[in-house]
Amino acid sequence: MTILEREVTGAVIHLRMNAPERLNALSDEMIAALHGALDEVAEDRSVRAVVLSGTGKAFCAGHDLKQMTAGRQNADGGAAYFKDLFDRCAAMMARIQSLPQPVIAKVHGVATAAGCQLVATCDLAVAAHGTRFGVNGVNIGLFCSTPMVALSRNIPRKLAFEMLTTGDFIEAERAATLGLINRAVPVDDLEDEAMALAEQLASKLGSAVRIGKEAFYNQIQMPVAEAYTYTGQVMVDNMAHPDTKEGIAAFIDKRPPDWSQ
Amino acid sequence: MTILEREVTGAVIHLRMNAPERLNALSDEMIAALHGALDEVAEDRSVRAVVLSGTGKAFCAGHDLKQMTAGRQNADGGAAYFKDLFDRCAAMMARIQSLPQPVIAKVHGVATAAGCQLVATCDLAVAAHGTRFGVNGVNIGLFCSTPMVALSRNIPRKLAFEMLTTGDFIEAERAATLGLINRAVPVDDLEDEAMALAEQLASKLGSAVRIGKEAFYNQIQMPVAEAYTYTGQVMVDNMAHPDTKEGIAAFIDKRPPDWSQ
Amino acid sequence: MTILEREVTGAVIHLRMNAPERLNALSDEMIAALHGALDEVAEDRSVRAVVLSGTGKAFCAGHDLKQMTAGRQNADGGAAYFKDLFDRCAAMMARIQSLPQPVIAKVHGVATAAGCQLVATCDLAVAAHGTRFGVNGVNIGLFCSTPMVALSRNIPRKLAFEMLTTGDFIEAERAATLGLINRAVPVDDLEDEAMALAEQLASKLGSAVRIGKEAFYNQIQMPVAEAYTYTGQVMVDNMAHPDTKEGIAAFIDKRPPDWSQ
Repeated sequence: MTILEREVTGAVIHLRMNAPERLNALSDEMIAALHGALDEVAEDRSVRAVVLSGTGKAFCAGHDLKQMTAGRQNADGGAAYFKDLFDRCAAMMARIQSLPQPVIAKVHGVATAAGCQLVATCDLAVAAHGTRFGVNGVNIGLFCSTPMVALSRNIPRKLAFEMLTTGDFIEAERAATLGLINRAVPVDDLEDEAMALAEQLASKLGSAVRIGKEAFYNQIQMPVAEAYTYTGQVMVDNMAHPDTKEGIAAFIDKRPPDWSQ
Repeated sequence: MTILEREVTGAVIHLRMNAPERLNALSDEMIAALHGALDEVAEDRSVRAVVLSGTGKAFCAGHDLKQMTAGRQNADGGAAYFKDLFDRCAAMMARIQSLPQPVIAKVHGVATAAGCQLVATCDLAVAAHGTRFGVNGVNIGLFCSTPMVALSRNIPRKLAFEMLTTGDFIEAERAATLGLINRAVPVDDLEDEAMALAEQLASKLGSAVRIGKEAFYNQIQMPVAEAYTYTGQVMVDNMAHPDTKEGIAAFIDKRPPDWSQ
Repeated sequence: MTILEREVTGAVIHLRMNAPERLNALSDEMIAALHGALDEVAEDRSVRAVVLSGTGKAFCAGHDLKQMTAGRQNADGGAAYFKDLFDRCAAMMARIQSLPQPVIAKVHGVATAAGCQLVATCDLAVAAHGTRFGVNGVNIGLFCSTPMVALSRNIPRKLAFEMLTTGDFIEAERAATLGLINRAVPVDDLEDEAMALAEQLASKLGSAVRIGKEAFYNQIQMPVAEAYTYTGQVMVDNMAHPDTKEGIAAFIDKRPPDWSQ
């Protein structure tokens, strides 16, 4: 049994967290497996979209508290291990957004703490009705400070603060209304919906998606004037791609594009 | 026939993009006409609000792809022309936000790519039911990198990413829910709604609206503490206007203000 | 009669603005009373949550226009007084967010101008059905430039611009949809809802809430990479608290935590 299953369907790779007995907790091993798989996907131009899900009852229940507790045995009470753990986890999250391909979270059951952060970090997310989302570390005295970086950049401020300080769950429909996920669907449709979305993205010109995704996360942190200077150059570079030239020509000629990729 | 019609009704100027056969594409000529008209409006204190719309089937379908394709004939494959084009387009968009008067997009039909960016850039927007919004450059291999600067500052992040990478349209009602427009109205009410909103804004004290609009876009990019230092001084300057003194006095006396303007 | 009533119920302190004849305007005295009370609360570890409300017909109607008008008698036309007033008001607002304990606005009647800013600034807000929110200074020629700092960080940009330039009110239900408040409830339930939320927050580990609230407002203004470096260290520090160790151990053992606080 592997901790992270991979299944390739056409141009879509499905990464499935597979530690159901631990609710797919982000253990040292899971973080490493995810980061490693993402690094490989980044180099594989045959992959055009990624679906990320979990086996068993939950999408992901956050950090592995038993493993963290074991880390306290170190001479420094675990401080160095914890720092390294949060750094590795943040680096894996950053890898999702720096990946050339779009990543779709396919969410069911529960997504809590760093598991909710994982949903917030993916480019897109689809969840089954009934899925519950929470950043409930406050309930055990460990405020979800790293998850809130992603959460507070997805949903309105007061609602993020409420989730973080009450520890209450929200349902999938509410998550969709707030912007944490793109949509909630019946559980029986979840696989089809996530795959249809992935295949739709995979059908686009890969270079254009790659250019656009990188620019998306770069420009969103810039002042507007700087963002326009930057994205103006991105558009110029995009125009220089032979496939883009063909795409525009095909559109003007009202025919399908004949792309090299 | 002019590419940009102007109609003045009281203190409201209506700018109407008029290249219906090209779906009001943002050609070199259209960008120049819009920027020029906005520069004139900026100097005209008798204008207190602007309505921006398009004639024909669509509000605006984005850049003029035929003109851009012609630009490829240049020795550099069009690179210098494209850079200049995106710079001019961004400068025109910036002129909307730097304009002393508020600008209301009155949207019908479709608003795609840079046309959707135009809606996102206007201070306010009202659209007819049935209007469709999209940033669908990805479908022809040209990711909407400049439009996303405006779009991703209007609507939640995951929804912006979805529109950009799927190329799918959203309807006016959805655009209103997400924050891309202020409201969707029946097509028969569109003109009245946009004009009523413009006249409402035009009825306010012009100096106050001018002060406030400039401060709005400045402060939104600042850290909170800096934003308060800045807007505190803006309030002090606003208080120094004789018309503001009269406005506050009239409010305390429960009578209409007698403004000089 | 005191301008700010304080009532302690368990670990919750209820601060009640009490100048109903002036609709709880943020006069010099009210700003000082609020800032002073918040400073005391900050030092009192027995207080774990704050509820802020107003007596009479309104939550708060903004600045005290009669007092401001009197300030115009100064030799400089009031400029120095106004600057100081806006600085003191902004400092009081900042004190709410720098307070170790969460602050819940309990809102009824109307919240206008700086009163609406006060709602936007609180960490959480619950309002009675029928409550109206507005930033309507534009109607008297004084644009709500300081209130918009808080407002535009709570709700989508175009909706904030609309409220600021039209001066129109929005209802509590709309305020909840936009993210200005957490929820709207029947007026008869308002007290119970606000207190239940305060007690829920007060039941959490105080050190965790304190750590988390401080980190929330710090990280939200940082670029993502910096925010993760910062919050990673916050998590390490949080893990070092003995009560957090006990909270995690209790969770693993499936028993209630035995916290020292």
